[in-house]
Amino acid sequence: MGELPTGPGNAITDVAGVLVGHVTLYRPEEGVCTGVTAVRPHPGNTFREKVAAAVHVINGFGKATGLAQVAELGTLETPVILTNTLAVGSAAEGLIRWMLERDPGIGGPAGTVNPVVMECNDGYLNDARRREVGPEHVARALENAGPSPPAEGAVGAGTGMVCYGFKGGIGTASRLVTGEAGTFTVGVLVLANFGRRRDLTVLGVPVGTLLEERRRAPRTPPGEAEAGRPGEGGSVIVLVATDAPVDARQLGRMARRGVVGLARTGSFVGHGSGDFVLAFSTATRYRHDAPDRVCWAPFLPDHGATFAALMRAVVESTEEAVLNALFRATTTRGRLGRTVEALPVQEVLDILGAAAEYYKK
Amino acid sequence: MGELPTGPGNAITDVAGVLVGHVTLYRPEEGVCTGVTAVRPHPGNTFREKVAAAVHVINGFGKATGLAQVAELGTLETPVILTNTLAVGSAAEGLIRWMLERDPGIGGPAGTVNPVVMECNDGYLNDARRREVGPEHVARALENAGPSPPAEGAVGAGTGMVCYGFKGGIGTASRLVTGEAGTFTVGVLVLANFGRRRDLTVLGVPVGTLLEERRRAPRTPPGEAEAGRPGEGGSVIVLVATDAPVDARQLGRMARRGVVGLARTGSFVGHGSGDFVLAFSTATRYRHDAPDRVCWAPFLPDHGATFAALMRAVVESTEEAVLNALFRATTTRGRLGRTVEALPVQEVLDILGAAAEYYKK
Amino acid sequence: MGELPTGPGNAITDVAGVLVGHVTLYRPEEGVCTGVTAVRPHPGNTFREKVAAAVHVINGFGKATGLAQVAELGTLETPVILTNTLAVGSAAEGLIRWMLERDPGIGGPAGTVNPVVMECNDGYLNDARRREVGPEHVARALENAGPSPPAEGAVGAGTGMVCYGFKGGIGTASRLVTGEAGTFTVGVLVLANFGRRRDLTVLGVPVGTLLEERRRAPRTPPGEAEAGRPGEGGSVIVLVATDAPVDARQLGRMARRGVVGLARTGSFVGHGSGDFVLAFSTATRYRHDAPDRVCWAPFLPDHGATFAALMRAVVESTEEAVLNALFRATTTRGRLGRTVEALPVQEVLDILGAAAEYYKK
Amino acid sequence: MGELPTGPGNAITDVAGVLVGHVTLYRPEEGVCTGVTAVRPHPGNTFREKVAAAVHVINGFGKATGLAQVAELGTLETPVILTNTLAVGSAAEGLIRWMLERDPGIGGPAGTVNPVVMECNDGYLNDARRREVGPEHVARALENAGPSPPAEGAVGAGTGMVCYGFKGGIGTASRLVTGEAGTFTVGVLVLANFGRRRDLTVLGVPVGTLLEERRRAPRTPPGEAEAGRPGEGGSVIVLVATDAPVDARQLGRMARRGVVGLARTGSFVGHGSGDFVLAFSTATRYRHDAPDRVCWAPFLPDHGATFAALMRAVVESTEEAVLNALFRATTTRGRLGRTVEALPVQEVLDILGAAAEYYKK
Repeated sequence: MGELPTGPGNAITDVAGVLVGHVTLYRPEEGVCTGVTAVRPHPGNTFREKVAAAVHVINGFGKATGLAQVAELGTLETPVILTNTLAVGSAAEGLIRWMLERDPGIGGPAGTVNPVVMECNDGYLNDARRREVGPEHVARALENAGPSPPAEGAVGAGTGMVCYGFKGGIGTASRLVTGEAGTFTVGVLVLANFGRRRDLTVLGVPVGTLLEERRRAPRTPPGEAEAGRPGEGGSVIVLVATDAPVDARQLGRMARRGVVGLARTGSFVGHGSGDFVLAFSTATRYRHDAPDRVCWAPFLPDHGATFAALMRAVVESTEEAVLNALFRATTTRGRLGRTVEALPVQEVLDILGAAAEYYKK
Repeated sequence: MGELPTGPGNAITDVAGVLVGHVTLYRPEEGVCTGVTAVRPHPGNTFREKVAAAVHVINGFGKATGLAQVAELGTLETPVILTNTLAVGSAAEGLIRWMLERDPGIGGPAGTVNPVVMECNDGYLNDARRREVGPEHVARALENAGPSPPAEGAVGAGTGMVCYGFKGGIGTASRLVTGEAGTFTVGVLVLANFGRRRDLTVLGVPVGTLLEERRRAPRTPPGEAEAGRPGEGGSVIVLVATDAPVDARQLGRMARRGVVGLARTGSFVGHGSGDFVLAFSTATRYRHDAPDRVCWAPFLPDHGATFAALMRAVVESTEEAVLNALFRATTTRGRLGRTVEALPVQEVLDILGAAAEYYKK
Repeated sequence: MGELPTGPGNAITDVAGVLVGHVTLYRPEEGVCTGVTAVRPHPGNTFREKVAAAVHVINGFGKATGLAQVAELGTLETPVILTNTLAVGSAAEGLIRWMLERDPGIGGPAGTVNPVVMECNDGYLNDARRREVGPEHVARALENAGPSPPAEGAVGAGTGMVCYGFKGGIGTASRLVTGEAGTFTVGVLVLANFGRRRDLTVLGVPVGTLLEERRRAPRTPPGEAEAGRPGEGGSVIVLVATDAPVDARQLGRMARRGVVGLARTGSFVGHGSGDFVLAFSTATRYRHDAPDRVCWAPFLPDHGATFAALMRAVVESTEEAVLNALFRATTTRGRLGRTVEALPVQEVLDILGAAAEYYKK
Repeated sequence: MGELPTGPGNAITDVAGVLVGHVTLYRPEEGVCTGVTAVRPHPGNTFREKVAAAVHVINGFGKATGLAQVAELGTLETPVILTNTLAVGSAAEGLIRWMLERDPGIGGPAGTVNPVVMECNDGYLNDARRREVGPEHVARALENAGPSPPAEGAVGAGTGMVCYGFKGGIGTASRLVTGEAGTFTVGVLVLANFGRRRDLTVLGVPVGTLLEERRRAPRTPPGEAEAGRPGEGGSVIVLVATDAPVDARQLGRMARRGVVGLARTGSFVGHGSGDFVLAFSTATRYRHDAPDRVCWAPFLPDHGATFAALMRAVVESTEEAVLNALFRATTTRGRLGRTVEALPVQEVLDILGAAAEYYKK
């Protein structure tokens, strides 16, 4: 998929230092079908060693917290926590506590900390009113975080998410970009919870429509929820990590390409879909207490082939991460006896295989 | 102060329906010097009957939550909670719970809710690491909320705030605008926690500098914290309420005038000061489940004298609200045996009185 | 293509009142291969009767003028002029003159006027240094403007444009949206001058790649210009017109969906591509000298199926407008003996027909 | 005025390399009262050696061109031209031509160029409908540009401008910032054409009101034009130059402080005032054709005292530049027999002197 080679793990963790951890809360009989996913930019103290970062709001119908400071200062100073919409408050509380425990200066001489929490609404499967996610789950996800390619699909924050009418959740992918300046990695992790089934497109093939036609499913008018499934609402969070030397402005440009990756899977960016992108680079560390002297930051020219390829890498990684979420997620039960089916992978592969056959001709 | 007449209470509550409530947490021996202030746009269910709203980030070094959705949809669907920086998570959790308790549809068929919490850092007086503010304090502040002009100064979220080196906190003011279309009210409530002492200006008079010179205080270089006092950091939250018929775009224009009011008190909008404005209008209610039909919203022409006066009312109200915070706040003790003095009101009035004498000549 | 029905002309002129006119400047021997396209929101004096409008910058590597005022006031008060990049100044001058001639109040008691000119770089075929486009061509395009579906392809501002390595230029399409509130029209006109050949996708089919493989064309690395063809640079302007009652904020939301339509044709939004969207609604007229009284503006609820379909209509119309530009453009000669081939339409239709066959199975 | 020392010329030209040139067009009998001012970031080819830059729109009721690309790429690649509102098109044309003449690659292999032109409306004194400003005046202003402190007041683009009801126009000022990293210069040049007379404040003293009271002038309601004078409309352009090593994001932060300087002179940022800030740094040059390798850019930490002082320098320089425009401008006649009086400097100095006396007590 795409032109660029994938990283060794085809995951956001291919960016050296990035750690991912999940906590899955799944007790469907009780209506609990949710969780937490933590992405750490590096294993150290991110408050003391911040990374360059930028945000882009594709569609602001979402409740992410911490974005204004990232936009103003161009840095990320905490891990990013993903969870369900109504848990943003308790997840922020959990993240703050975890930071305070690790750094006695925060809340004292070192000032305050800006927790970044992003979310999607898993309320179709999860009884969000139960408020199952607590601060302790954030701590656990952070402690679980490791450098291996993370589990995908119905896991962590993705436990209860639905994407294109099938089970969605966590997906990840990566791309390598090689230019004169060396080889750089772009990794993406998505929390995928958006889209109408008949819009799903895989490698250009209208898989969602073909599946619906095979099933003779009733056609839903645009803008309406499909019977028994979330509608165009939902949401998606796209986290972009890179080790390429790019500054906050350039990360903003990269973040703004995320929507292209989503569109390539069929997204129309519905009204109710809170679609947010956060991008960070590990190439430069910004010390919290850097002395007041001239510093130097590396960057790649915007007009160069390397930066162009980094932007393309965001698109390809985002597209593939969404598909990985769909291909890896398993059929999941939730509240009120509801079930969301996994993507019928074999059927999709058959369709794609036939398409590939066709294209060979 | 200013050209426009004040409302009957000279308070944000002059906008009919707006309710304000405080919870003050003050046990200085234990280092507790903080609180919560709740501003309700109207007494009803704001989730079901949203108000038009807009945000403006003057300086994004802050942790406010809920802003992206206000910007996207142009509506506010919860009360606004003010508190200390490290309590944003637990306050958001408290606000979500309070909304859930009042509306069984949230988190279910009616979708999710976007809690708006804004903050300043009271860490000079308050031991923020204690995490004193809990969800229950938010509920209490909301229950306390009433239509009377709220207490000002060292109260609620303002308990531990410091402004221009003196005790700051909550301040409020209002203005009446009369045009051909009728009389409208603009009310402002600030959480004032910003500024260097020598920058304080009252009605154009450099009161801060004059006070420093009288005290022969050592001069602090720009950008550095003053000994024993917060520096240019801090923050300020400006809430603007109006009953004038203005839409979200126009509220954004009004919000962007808030910085002028701050500047008139001497603010330089320091790097570390998270300065945010949120403006809402009660003139139109947006029903959560409005039927899919053409609706009509009232507005005033941007080019008219009435809208011009509304923008000026934001400036005047913001300026006066900051001064009211300073004039009403009382000397306050906090953690580590620290004390922040109240503005020496009589001394300031003497200075201003002399200045007024001078101007009469 | 898409789910929604097209309007009667499948053109931006399906929105009642919208007029489009072209001036084509084509003398390839002299290196002249450029032009002007004018889009008038309605036949009247747009300065006196403004329309609601919004802009969205997908990628700001472009020289459009007049955007800040549209964003601030939410209105468009002139026709929109499209032309080549280096002609923005003279086109703005031409538009100003044309407005002055028609309204003696502008530049006097009625204040100034905000000309909106948008552009793409036709420098591969056109010798832009010749500065062929003058103010008089703008006047002529405006006078040529009529209510019929405009000519597409290598015409007007599209004369010298290149899209996906084939001849591009002007394209248009429209969609009808029917809801409880009635039937509304969305029309799009694009100036298409972007994309790498191998990225071209038609209805999900990777037509560009298939054509390249058939031609055994050498593969170009991402980010580099393809030999003899513009690279990922270029640009695209998307104009969205509607008669639906939506306000400026909602038009912004619609404009932000344009990128999805572009992505569906294969765009990766390259670094050098200045991609801008401007959306306007003819449903409400804002009088320049409206009296200072409460006015009322119609709108559709954001959460309704009608507004969702309007956003989808932007995507579908944008996608089809780009393809129409490609399918209608003819092989064009330009400066330095260069030629840009038209899309090989029959070959593409064969590919698509085969794909359609396949999908039927 | 202010805390920071001024540069040697107290002018934007104190930033090494910055050149300013004027062309004044003043034939009041014919209604010609306008001009052009050119600010060159450095004496070289700015297209080949770009400077870091950012823009901030305080109030977007203005017609500046070229802003989107500055925001996207963080660079300025032409001089900045200031002129009257209706001349933006011809001035952009003039700037493009001038760039083309100096660089044969533009419009060819080197791509297009982004002209930046900013404006205020001098239509009270100038018969803007005459369209007196042509491309040739831009070229002349650019050729006139030199490194000496520029003339101020009713000169160049300032010829016909009105500020606080008095004659305004061009003003400039500078500040030096000394930190551990060395000494840096911030220079500001304003085109001042805004404000209601009674709002004028000088060093905190309500000079405008005092002058009006002495003259027993009739009081004008907020939002209405004052008899015989422009109202709250007008506009102001603030250009900020620095040699400090700051990147585009940091320049954006500096630009956003400009409004504080305006407010300190009494501005309420009226509806009709198009208030724009553009900031650039000469510390880093961005080569148009830099090879695709890792580059390094210098910056100062945002949290340091030096950067704080740079932001303060913007405020102080902007405030003083506006006052310099007022103090230097001379009484000017214009179209329709109109005259705009200069600020009565001696009277103002008397008022200020008395105020200073008072403050000494």
